[in-house]
Amino acid sequence: MNNQEYANIVLKELEHTLSNIDIDKTNAFVELLNTSNAIFSCGAGRSGFMVKGFAMRLMHMGKTSYVVGETCTPNITKDDVLVICSGSGKTASLVNYANKAKEIGAKIVLVTINVNSTIADMADIVIEIPAVSPKSDVQGSVKSIQPMGSLFEQSEGIYLDIVIMLLMEKLGYSSDTMFTRHANLE
Amino acid sequence: MNNQEYANIVLKELEHTLSNIDIDKTNAFVELLNTSNAIFSCGAGRSGFMVKGFAMRLMHMGKTSYVVGETCTPNITKDDVLVICSGSGKTASLVNYANKAKEIGAKIVLVTINVNSTIADMADIVIEIPAVSPKSDVQGSVKSIQPMGSLFEQSEGIYLDIVIMLLMEKLGYSSDTMFTRHANLE
Amino acid sequence: MNNQEYANIVLKELEHTLSNIDIDKTNAFVELLNTSNAIFSCGAGRSGFMVKGFAMRLMHMGKTSYVVGETCTPNITKDDVLVICSGSGKTASLVNYANKAKEIGAKIVLVTINVNSTIADMADIVIEIPAVSPKSDVQGSVKSIQPMGSLFEQSEGIYLDIVIMLLMEKLGYSSDTMFTRHANLE
Amino acid sequence: MNNQEYANIVLKELEHTLSNIDIDKTNAFVELLNTSNAIFSCGAGRSGFMVKGFAMRLMHMGKTSYVVGETCTPNITKDDVLVICSGSGKTASLVNYANKAKEIGAKIVLVTINVNSTIADMADIVIEIPAVSPKSDVQGSVKSIQPMGSLFEQSEGIYLDIVIMLLMEKLGYSSDTMFTRHANLE
Repeated sequence: MNNQEYANIVLKELEHTLSNIDIDKTNAFVELLNTSNAIFSCGAGRSGFMVKGFAMRLMHMGKTSYVVGETCTPNITKDDVLVICSGSGKTASLVNYANKAKEIGAKIVLVTINVNSTIADMADIVIEIPAVSPKSDVQGSVKSIQPMGSLFEQSEGIYLDIVIMLLMEKLGYSSDTMFTRHANLE
Repeated sequence: MNNQEYANIVLKELEHTLSNIDIDKTNAFVELLNTSNAIFSCGAGRSGFMVKGFAMRLMHMGKTSYVVGETCTPNITKDDVLVICSGSGKTASLVNYANKAKEIGAKIVLVTINVNSTIADMADIVIEIPAVSPKSDVQGSVKSIQPMGSLFEQSEGIYLDIVIMLLMEKLGYSSDTMFTRHANLE
Repeated sequence: MNNQEYANIVLKELEHTLSNIDIDKTNAFVELLNTSNAIFSCGAGRSGFMVKGFAMRLMHMGKTSYVVGETCTPNITKDDVLVICSGSGKTASLVNYANKAKEIGAKIVLVTINVNSTIADMADIVIEIPAVSPKSDVQGSVKSIQPMGSLFEQSEGIYLDIVIMLLMEKLGYSSDTMFTRHANLE
Repeated sequence: MNNQEYANIVLKELEHTLSNIDIDKTNAFVELLNTSNAIFSCGAGRSGFMVKGFAMRLMHMGKTSYVVGETCTPNITKDDVLVICSGSGKTASLVNYANKAKEIGAKIVLVTINVNSTIADMADIVIEIPAVSPKSDVQGSVKSIQPMGSLFEQSEGIYLDIVIMLLMEKLGYSSDTMFTRHANLE
């Protein structure tokens, strides 16, 4: 196959996953982002890179946004929200963060394939992305020709970008407003 | 609009960009990855997060892969390739890297919106992604409802995942082979 | 030699460098940190790791502190200060940052071996650390048995920790106060 | 106090810690670095920044060196060594890494204040740095005027630089040899 043929298949896979994400839960997620004092985001591996893109856009919008594990990230408080992206819902380091956030009383949002998981049980809002890797076999979810967690990671990244647009809409922000907050030291 | 309506529009934008990426240039890019001694990847901001996902997959495949700027990234040599992702093709830090790679004799691949740019002039292979942000106005390219460079960054990420699948196909690798190289300390 | 013998020599080298850092300039540096709206810090390579330790301590103190290049670092403004650590005073990426900070009207502090350098010419306060690597040959400064920039990097790290203690003293902070702001998600 | 007076005290604290690190254990550590296939290093917070400086110098020496958690770090094998720096010896994420390394059969070196700790119990070599923060109260160790773990982190950084010099001596390397491997894309 060539790159354009692969693109057709990948886009069909993404259509399946993105068209099946719950609208009400998404609106609740957007509202929680809007009302929280600070937003802490985390994820591991490639899923974590998508999370960083989300945290950066929140900063562009003027929100108080942190990535867990970066240099200047402070302690989380009960008025904050922790956004966790984890395909399996049970990545060890992320379970740790969820436990501590819960203990402190912060809200938790999980973006995941696996709604029956350790972190899902602790989360206030669970966003299901019905994507599976070729290795997994979760009923009702979309099989992928892509290696490992690629379909989940792509879906997660695009979904989080859509959440940003929903938040922009709610706040009456445009792309121009956001350009003014773009880091100017690079 | 709700998240599913946004998803429809974003997927249409991605169909435009991904269906118009050159097949021959992509095959040349894959072949260069295959024959290079080591692969160095770089990008700034959100584009850089996508690049990290690509570099990680190359590592999963057993390739010698580095992200420019990370702790254990060594010096580049003339037998290596530098993959640069830059929407504008002229990000200052990335122009710097391109200059040094050129001086040393390493090959350069640029993934960009802007084929008439400083880095494009230095690159051995230029991959055009016809995406524009609402602010830009490049003729022949796709306008986006998304803020800032989001469409380019999404297209870049999915395109690089497709490049990985093309390289897997060439080498006869499956997702299972790659799982064995996945970092086991997380 | 064994590790304790090496320790003796390294500590003598550090005594030379740390005893010769200007007191008045240091006090001016501390005052600038105290009065700036936000503190942006940057450095490359090993020198950059020391800078991150400094930025983290400033966060522990409740200061608005950012590392240039991290995910949630916003744009710098004229009410902020940029702290640059660069042995040579002319690292390309850091010269870039200095130029942009200058253009915007932010204050610049340089911690360096080389007081006659591109960045030194732009800085509001230049802190000289009289350390040289075996390769360099700057008159009046301390030669080192250590490889590359190690002596500068060690001196920089300890000096920045001392600057933190001077700022704590000025603000009446104790270690206990700071423990309460330590990241609690790790 | 001024910065030079603080420097005197800090250097005395460092003399106490660095003069009391075991010579035989250090030699065993250096030999293990020399004979391992690959070296994986990890640490959290400020201690982790020091670890990155160490991992970078190992790369400069031509060793196969990785920081746990960075993009291109592969899976660890039984022929590798995991170097863990943890003042408390029980940081949750680092205990996780130790467990997995142990399971796989990799060697473990711990650099710590606390020789009676979870990770110490699993480690093949435990390097004690007798430093305490003002808050802690470990018998026989050095009290510090410095906040939080600063004395441990400084001692750790300098100690690891000394380990590099011992390894250079063993291999007949000079600073010049190492300059040739310095990253050339910055």
